[in-house]
Amino acid sequence: MTHQDTKTKIIEAGAQIIHLKGFNNTGIQEILEASGVPKGSFYFYFKSKEDFGLQVIDHFVEGFMSVADEILNNDALPPLQRLKIFSEWFINFFKSQNCTCGCPIGNISQEMADINPKFREKLSGIVTQMANCYIKPLKEAQAAGEISSTLDVEETSRFIVSCWHGALMHMKVVKSLEPLETCHKFIFERVLKV
Amino acid sequence: MTHQDTKTKIIEAGAQIIHLKGFNNTGIQEILEASGVPKGSFYFYFKSKEDFGLQVIDHFVEGFMSVADEILNNDALPPLQRLKIFSEWFINFFKSQNCTCGCPIGNISQEMADINPKFREKLSGIVTQMANCYIKPLKEAQAAGEISSTLDVEETSRFIVSCWHGALMHMKVVKSLEPLETCHKFIFERVLKV
Repeated sequence: MTHQDTKTKIIEAGAQIIHLKGFNNTGIQEILEASGVPKGSFYFYFKSKEDFGLQVIDHFVEGFMSVADEILNNDALPPLQRLKIFSEWFINFFKSQNCTCGCPIGNISQEMADINPKFREKLSGIVTQMANCYIKPLKEAQAAGEISSTLDVEETSRFIVSCWHGALMHMKVVKSLEPLETCHKFIFERVLKV
Repeated sequence: MTHQDTKTKIIEAGAQIIHLKGFNNTGIQEILEASGVPKGSFYFYFKSKEDFGLQVIDHFVEGFMSVADEILNNDALPPLQRLKIFSEWFINFFKSQNCTCGCPIGNISQEMADINPKFREKLSGIVTQMANCYIKPLKEAQAAGEISSTLDVEETSRFIVSCWHGALMHMKVVKSLEPLETCHKFIFERVLKV
C-alpha cells in the first residue's frame, strides 16, 4: 500500500466517524483503529487534527459534487426533471441511511463555524460551491418556462441548499423522511412554481 | 443564594458556552468556572452531564417560546404581520449577535440526535413544539385571506422552522445576514403567497 493509499484510508475512516459523531467528538485514536493504521502514524500523514479535518471536508464535498455533476448537468433530461431527480436522489440516500447523519458539510459547518476560522472560511466557500451547482439547471428551467421567470437564480440556489440543510437536521432528530419530502414538495410546488 | 439560584446560574452559564462551542466540546470544569460555582458542586445539582444537557435544552426552548408567545399570539395585530415581525425579530437578534451561534436547539439537534437517544427524543418533541407555535397565526392568516388557502398549515409550520434552521446554519458559516433575509423573502413572497 502506498503512502497515498494509507492517507486515503485514514481520511475515509475518519470521515465516517466524524459524519456520525462530529469533529470535536472524534479522537485520532479511534480514527486510526477504524482505518487499521498503526498508532503514531497519524502525524506522518497530517500536520494536525485541524489539517486532517480540512482534508476530510474536501473528501465530503467531492461526494456531493460528483452526484451533482452527474445529475444536474445531464443535458439529456429537461432541467426541471434533473432538479427533481437530484432532490429524490437525496431522499433515497437518506432512506438507505435510516435517517441518520445528515449532510456532513452542514454538520461540520454548524459545529465549527464559530470556533475555527480556517474551517469557517473553507466551509463558506463550499456552501457557495454547493449552491452554484443549481445555477445552470435553474437558468435552463427558467429559459424553458418550467419554473417562475421572476426568480433570482443565484438567490434561489442558495435558498434551496439552505432549505435542505434545515430539512436534514430535522430528519435526524425526528427520524423520519417527512422533513425531506416536505422540503421537496415546497421547493417544487411553491418556491419554483411558475 | 438558594440552591435553585445556583442551579439556574450553572444552567445559564453552561447554555452560553454550549451555544457557542457545542455540548460535547464543553467541559464541566469551564461551566463551573464561568458560573463562579465551586468545583465539585456540579454533581450536587445534576445527576450527570447528560442530565445537565437535558435541562439546558429546557432553558433554550423557554427563550424561544416566550418570544413566540409574545409575538405570534398578539391578537392586536393581523396574523401575517405577526408572522413577519417574528421573522424580523430573529434577523435583528442575530444581527446583534454578529451572525454567531445560530439556533441552540438546531445546533444540539445536529450534534446529538444520532449519538444520544434521550437527547434525540426530547429534541424531536421540541422541534414539533416550535413548529406548533406557527399553527394559530397561519390558520388565522388563511382565514383572513392573507396567505394561500391551499397550504396545509401543519406541514407549512414544520417547513418554516426547518427553513430557518438551515438559514441559521448558513448565516453562521458565511457570517452574513443574507441567508436569513433570503429565507424571510422566500417564505413571504413564495411559500405563503396567496
